[in-house]
Amino acid sequence: MNKKIILSGMRPTGKLHLGHWVGALSNWVSLQETYQCFFMIADWHALMSEYKNSSAIKENIFDNICDWLAYGIDPKKATIFIQSDVTEHLELYIILSALTPLGWLYRCPTFKEQINQLKDKEINTYAFLGYPILQAADILLYKADYVPVGEDQLPHLELTREIVRRFHNIYQKGIFKEPQPLLTPMPRLVGLDGRKMSKSYNNYIALDEEDNQIKTKILSMFTDPLRIRISDPGHPQDCNVYSYYCTFFDELKTDVYEKCITAKRGCVECKEILAKKIIEIISTKREKKKKFLKKKELVYDILNDGRKEAKRVASLTIKEVKEIIGFNYF
Amino acid sequence: MNKKIILSGMRPTGKLHLGHWVGALSNWVSLQETYQCFFMIADWHALMSEYKNSSAIKENIFDNICDWLAYGIDPKKATIFIQSDVTEHLELYIILSALTPLGWLYRCPTFKEQINQLKDKEINTYAFLGYPILQAADILLYKADYVPVGEDQLPHLELTREIVRRFHNIYQKGIFKEPQPLLTPMPRLVGLDGRKMSKSYNNYIALDEEDNQIKTKILSMFTDPLRIRISDPGHPQDCNVYSYYCTFFDELKTDVYEKCITAKRGCVECKEILAKKIIEIISTKREKKKKFLKKKELVYDILNDGRKEAKRVASLTIKEVKEIIGFNYF
Repeated sequence: MNKKIILSGMRPTGKLHLGHWVGALSNWVSLQETYQCFFMIADWHALMSEYKNSSAIKENIFDNICDWLAYGIDPKKATIFIQSDVTEHLELYIILSALTPLGWLYRCPTFKEQINQLKDKEINTYAFLGYPILQAADILLYKADYVPVGEDQLPHLELTREIVRRFHNIYQKGIFKEPQPLLTPMPRLVGLDGRKMSKSYNNYIALDEEDNQIKTKILSMFTDPLRIRISDPGHPQDCNVYSYYCTFFDELKTDVYEKCITAKRGCVECKEILAKKIIEIISTKREKKKKFLKKKELVYDILNDGRKEAKRVASLTIKEVKEIIGFNYF
Repeated sequence: MNKKIILSGMRPTGKLHLGHWVGALSNWVSLQETYQCFFMIADWHALMSEYKNSSAIKENIFDNICDWLAYGIDPKKATIFIQSDVTEHLELYIILSALTPLGWLYRCPTFKEQINQLKDKEINTYAFLGYPILQAADILLYKADYVPVGEDQLPHLELTREIVRRFHNIYQKGIFKEPQPLLTPMPRLVGLDGRKMSKSYNNYIALDEEDNQIKTKILSMFTDPLRIRISDPGHPQDCNVYSYYCTFFDELKTDVYEKCITAKRGCVECKEILAKKIIEIISTKREKKKKFLKKKELVYDILNDGRKEAKRVASLTIKEVKEIIGFNYF
């Protein structure tokens, strides 16, 4: 029984928050049960936007991995590894680079979009243009069947498939699979202020947030702007706090909705209950994480095992690719 | 007594000919006496233009290395290695890629020039645009003081220096040298038909050409078009054959010149003498090469030793670079 293969990664550019849990990590935790998963710390990808502050990447890697472990990524089930530990990524990257027309990259809608969004980071660089080729190499190296992606990443995955077809066409050997998107529900969590939850907006709840911090942050959340007095009936569909109930506590949402529109519960009480429930989710995992943070050796061992397994698979693919292009010298 | 360091390479895209000897190899043979030389088979660079016919690269590598050895590159004096055997090239390549603005690459005069010249090869690719960054990585990895270059390569070397300054500026650590060009006399040898000697024009004399082939080829050379009868005085300054005497047999050129302008020697005789002299140069080296071609194990050992030494130096640089950018995890 061969499990289907999944490759996914995170860029170690900062602390992980509830947005990452909702958008990716919770999905990974279920995927590892049915698929052969490769979960990658994409540090080369991080370097492309963070090269001016790259010294933070190291700390982020260790911190993020401890989050992964605390929230349920199981190294017995999934392969956890750091991209730069497996140099085969770069070998496949340059091979695919040699046959990818420049025009394909400029056509990627994300390219110009990101350059405009991240003006202060000066990412109008050579590496950043090639971002989707490195992604293609990441995916193809493990012959992934599926890649969990959001809608915005679909053009990148389509580019990977185009590169596969071009490779097969040039070398007349069909060794790669065309990876398919796994469009699992990955809703975007809004931040405390109603904008997208993001480190740069400082509107997030970290995956290891302390209890009192969680409470303070949730009590500061915006609610229905039209509900001025506690006796006014609220409009939950316009309330950020209600959206958190919907995302995390499906079982409570009908009751919260009812109590809001009938003005039976005030916003402060509603937020206090939410804070308590969120604390329930985070606190045990946070304490678990603290243990991992202290067990450096254990985490290194996990990364070392992951590196070996990733390298085992990746080197098989590279061997095959080098034979096809004639780079098998000895 | 620390020797100054030199890095130079050749792309294994075909057989080597007298043009390579005059333009590079003869220079390498003298440089290895006074410098610490790294001579590289640039197979990643070859892939960038030859990805559609990459299967020939392997054979070219072995063939070219045997030429190097036969013509006097000494593995005891210089480090001979294959670029793709040392993955550190790709690590430094992606790190430098992250900080190199796209505009610097488009400004390189060679880029658009080559794209127009090699239209049938479809090199309007991502890798080809990054060619000068990979060159920078090649040079900086060995902290080369000098790079033997022709005039046309000066912009690439200037780009390497720009990248060095940007790296030092961003990370505030000065670990690289700004490599200088070594503008040693490397005249361009014209081919049998008066155009640039090149594989694609089929106007070359290979470094392992057989004697009768050399004779046939030289006798087919164009001479002074104004000298119709043997009794007409010639114009050596317009004669391709005379230019070969100037390049290879400085000691004969006055005599050849005299005999030509006074019509004391006909063109056929003049070419026969040249053929004999060129055969003297090539024949012993050709036979030497044949021996190397048969001793595969010996050549592999040389390449293996070269790989180890190149990797030893390159990995020290990468370690240093990774520490500076914060990619030193364990």
